[in-house]
Formats: sequence, structure tokens, C-alpha cells
Amino acid sequence: MLRAGVDLGGTKIQSVIVDPEGEVLGQDRIPTPQDQGSAGVIAAMVASVRSALASANASLDDVLGVGVGAPGQIDHDDGTVSHAGNLPDWLGTVPVAGPLREALGVPIELANDVQVGVMAESQLGAGRPYSSMLGIFCGTGVGGGIVINDALWLGRGAAGEVGHMVVMPDGALCPCGRRGCLEAYAGRAAMEVEARRRVDHGKHTKLFTIMQKKGRSRVSSGVWAKALAKNDHMATELIDRAVWALGLASASAVNLLDVEAVVIGGGLGCRLGTPFADRIRAAMIPHLILPEKAPQVLSAALGDLGGAMGAALRVQHTVPPPGNIGVVHEED
Amino acid sequence: MLRAGVDLGGTKIQSVIVDPEGEVLGQDRIPTPQDQGSAGVIAAMVASVRSALASANASLDDVLGVGVGAPGQIDHDDGTVSHAGNLPDWLGTVPVAGPLREALGVPIELANDVQVGVMAESQLGAGRPYSSMLGIFCGTGVGGGIVINDALWLGRGAAGEVGHMVVMPDGALCPCGRRGCLEAYAGRAAMEVEARRRVDHGKHTKLFTIMQKKGRSRVSSGVWAKALAKNDHMATELIDRAVWALGLASASAVNLLDVEAVVIGGGLGCRLGTPFADRIRAAMIPHLILPEKAPQVLSAALGDLGGAMGAALRVQHTVPPPGNIGVVHEED
Repeated sequence: MLRAGVDLGGTKIQSVIVDPEGEVLGQDRIPTPQDQGSAGVIAAMVASVRSALASANASLDDVLGVGVGAPGQIDHDDGTVSHAGNLPDWLGTVPVAGPLREALGVPIELANDVQVGVMAESQLGAGRPYSSMLGIFCGTGVGGGIVINDALWLGRGAAGEVGHMVVMPDGALCPCGRRGCLEAYAGRAAMEVEARRRVDHGKHTKLFTIMQKKGRSRVSSGVWAKALAKNDHMATELIDRAVWALGLASASAVNLLDVEAVVIGGGLGCRLGTPFADRIRAAMIPHLILPEKAPQVLSAALGDLGGAMGAALRVQHTVPPPGNIGVVHEED
Repeated sequence: MLRAGVDLGGTKIQSVIVDPEGEVLGQDRIPTPQDQGSAGVIAAMVASVRSALASANASLDDVLGVGVGAPGQIDHDDGTVSHAGNLPDWLGTVPVAGPLREALGVPIELANDVQVGVMAESQLGAGRPYSSMLGIFCGTGVGGGIVINDALWLGRGAAGEVGHMVVMPDGALCPCGRRGCLEAYAGRAAMEVEARRRVDHGKHTKLFTIMQKKGRSRVSSGVWAKALAKNDHMATELIDRAVWALGLASASAVNLLDVEAVVIGGGLGCRLGTPFADRIRAAMIPHLILPEKAPQVLSAALGDLGGAMGAALRVQHTVPPPGNIGVVHEED
């Protein structure tokens, strides 16, 4: 049987169809509708899954279920997504599993987008050779996950917030409202705020010109990559700063956890690739208690598809408990 | 059957005899011989186990084995302890399991002293109600351990080095040679170096007067406690600094691991007790991504006996593999 996975993001919806070995047989990628509320977003997810199935020459009868990786707070039992500020018009707590199941007629498995992305890298991507790893996903923010004995360690439900390890006491302001978190140095949103602050103080950069030329309203990963390629001074400084912070936080995490590998993913991490991962490793080593046993630091291998592939992986864990109707709990 | 445990330290050897429920039936505590080399230390361990057995009205026939918690690097297969700088005249790699087994005639289980101390707190002490915890042991240095699903997570063998999480980039010099590690702020050796530095710069403190009155050559945990009780300004400042660093490092660790509890142990941690743990929790909360879900921060419950009790716990894991003579591998 096949499995479908959907990565629900604020700007795009990515769907994949995978076979039992995790091979991608088909996929679809569409923009997240910005003006039709959560109902429009859910309708777009349904359409995207159908389109991915068509590209795989498969139908809903061939799939065991659909996994969905979503931002915000997931209530697995209720099948809802709350506090998803990145999603357009996503007010309060929105039922997702129920409506999707009604439209698609297969079990739906909801999970956190970063957690499924980390598990995809662990099982199918750069972390595959290792039974323990730390995933650090640099996108708008910095998320992450810890894999121990080949399983995601969730703690009391919120483990993996590597983006909020403190790298500099009383340091840069983080989008979370605190100071000195890793995300304040290595998250795209915070890096853009810092770039604008420097421009306001009379510094020069090509970042915003490149952004406008690309027709973007935000300094995207592609904008950062282009500015670096043009040797833009400010972009280079801010990426250096991100590398420093990522090296420091990874070193503290590795001293604590002694994992075999650190996998750098997310939009920015994937875009900057292996040279970025190599620089993070070099920045990490001076802070390691056992530098001679420095872990591998690798760029995420699955790129844009990782989130959707990880969401699909969640479906295999679906074993309907006795007296229950599968993954959709008390939906009506 | 009973189990014996020995905590081998640079200044004292602590032995306990525990029953299958982990109850302490007898114990012995003697100074570590300082001038008889490793042979003298091993002979003292043998004497201490015999003395603990006598105090429990038991004999070697009643014990399943002896667990030993030792500093330095443990080679479990070879039964040796290396790089144990805290132990007197401990040069190179010293066989420990072999000589002890020869003298006592029971299986010997060697393990890292901090790791057994953390496991004792998890299974029999402050961490008992929780299946996940972080142990932070503040003594001469700062060691620690991570318990996940009721088991110690060792990573590639060196996990738990919470003392070398970086709390201040380019900060205070750590005994490990790096800068800004937690241990540079919360380890007794580093705190004493800092106090001497401040005295050299003309600052006043009662720390060294109290030390001399107590007949100590080092600023022990008792000296710190006494100076605090006398409202010594420098001692208060340095303990405040340690609390700050412990709060910061625990917050980063909790954001990463989301454990249920943090247990503060070690000589200094146990001596300063619950008020110290409460202050660390207060210092941690502002840096937590989910402050409303702050973990418990507890003072270690087993005190001075924890290490020896944890060493005894190791014996229960001893299942001689087929064709093997138990825990003593290739000893002769």
C-alpha cells in the first residue's frame, strides 16, 4: 500500500505519494490560498493530494492514509491545529483531520511539521546511517528535533526547541520575546529584522534590492544565497553570525547528548547546503568536550520534500485501537 | 540477595550494602589513602566493602556483586580506570575490576561515578516519580546525566556533559581549558580560582579564613555554606553567578529535552539543598519557551550515599553472557 503526506506551510502546500520503501512516486506543490480562510486551505490540501495521486498514477484506494505535517499546536486526539500564526486566517482551533477524512475517505494522521521533517531525515535522509541525531531546521524560525535510538524524543510533548537554546545571555531579541536564543541569530525572520535595523543605521546591503528584483516581500533563503554569491558585506556578516550561533548551540547540545550526527535543514539550511553545514561543524568543534569525537554535521538530504515525506511516514504507525475507528477520534 | 556499591572519590571511599529494594542496610566511609598509590586505594576499597558488610551483619556470600563508581575513563570490558586525575597517584590505566574480584571473590561492575549517581537519583531518589530527568552534579567540577524513559542516555558513551554547555561565549575560563562553560561558573574548583583572583585584585572575603579554620586546603562545600551564612559578599556574588549559569544551562537543556525534572546534586548541590534548587528554577524560567510547563527542580535526595547506591544498582544488570565468567572480562 502507498501512503500520502502533506506538508502544510504558510506559503505552499507540498504533497507526496510514497511507496512502502519511502520512495516518492508522485508529488504536487501549490501555493497556500491566502484569502479563503481555513476552509480554503483544507480544500487546497484535498486538491493537492488528489493531484499528487494522479501524478503517481494511483488512486485513494491505493493509500493507507494521509499524514499531515502542520505548524502550530497539534491536538492529535481531536485532529485540530491551533496557534498556527503562519497559516493565513487560521483563527483559534481548526479541525483538520475530520474535514480531510470526510473529503478523502482515508485515515488522517496529524503531526507537527518540524517533527515529521526531522523523522524523514532520520529514516530516509541524511540521518539514515545513524540511530541518534539532532535536527536543526533553519527557516523563518529555527526548529528541531532529537532522535534517540531511531525514535523522536518528544519529552512532555515539546522537546526539540533547539532554536530557543540560549547562545548569548541578554543577546539579540528573539521573535519569541526573549533574548539571546539561537533563533535570534539563525532564524530568517530575526536575521531580516537585524538587516533592516542596520540599514536604518546607515549601513548598506544588496539584500532588499535582490528581494524586490525577485518580487518577494520577505528576504527569502534564495535572497540570502544570492546576496552571499554577490559578496554582500552585510549578508556575509549576518550569515557568519548565524554560523557562530549554530556552532555554539550544536556544541552545547552535543556535549549534553553525544549524538552521532547533526542534520541542518529548513529552507535556509537546505539552500546554503553542505558548505553551510561544514562551517557550522568548524564553529562547533572548539566548544566540544571531546573534539576528536565531533559528530557528523550534514545538510538535510530530502530538501523541500522532507516534510511531506515525514508526514507520510506517520501513517505507518496507525494501528486502530480496539473499539476505535482508526486515527480520526470522536470526529462526529 | 544483597548488592554492594562503592563510590570511589579523590578524598573518600564510600561503600554501601543495599537490599533488593535499594534500602541501605549498612555502610562505611573512609578517607582515600593519599600516599600508597593505586594498590593502596584498591586495598582500601576492599576493606571498606568488608566493613560495610559487617555493619549490615552480612558476608560476601550474601552479595550478588560489587558495583564501583569511579571518576575518569572507565573501560568496562577491561575493568580499568584511566585519566582519573582526582585519584591520588593514579597513573595511566589501572586495572580495578580484576584485583577487586580476586580479593572479594564476587563479580565487579565498574561504571562512571556521575552516571551511577544520576541513576541512583532517578531510581531511588528525587527523580523517582519521573521517567525523564536531567541530573546536574555540582562538585569540584560539574557533571551530569540524562535519563530518558527511565534509562541513562549515554549517546556514543559521553552524553551528559552538562558542565560543558556554553553559558557565556568567551566567558570565564573553565578547568577544561575552554571558555564560558557552565563548570567555569558553577564548579567548586573554578569558583575557588575566581575567588582567589578577586582577592588578588584587592577584594575581601571570609572564604579563605573559614577554610583555614576548618583545616581545609580547598574551599569545600561546607566552606561555601558557612560563608553564605555569614553573608560574605564575595561568596554571595559567586553563588549568585553559579545560580545564574545553572539556570541558563538548565533552560537550554529543558528547551531541548523537555524533561520532567532537573535534579541538582553533587557536594555543593547537596550542601546548599532545596533553597539552591529553588533559586536555579527561578533563574531558569525566564529562558524557557514554555515557562508555564517549567519542570520540577529538586535537590538530590540521597546525599553522600547516592554514588555508592547507584554503583550497587549496576550489579543487578549483570547477566553473565554464555561462555563468559561474568563481569570480569579477560582479566587474566
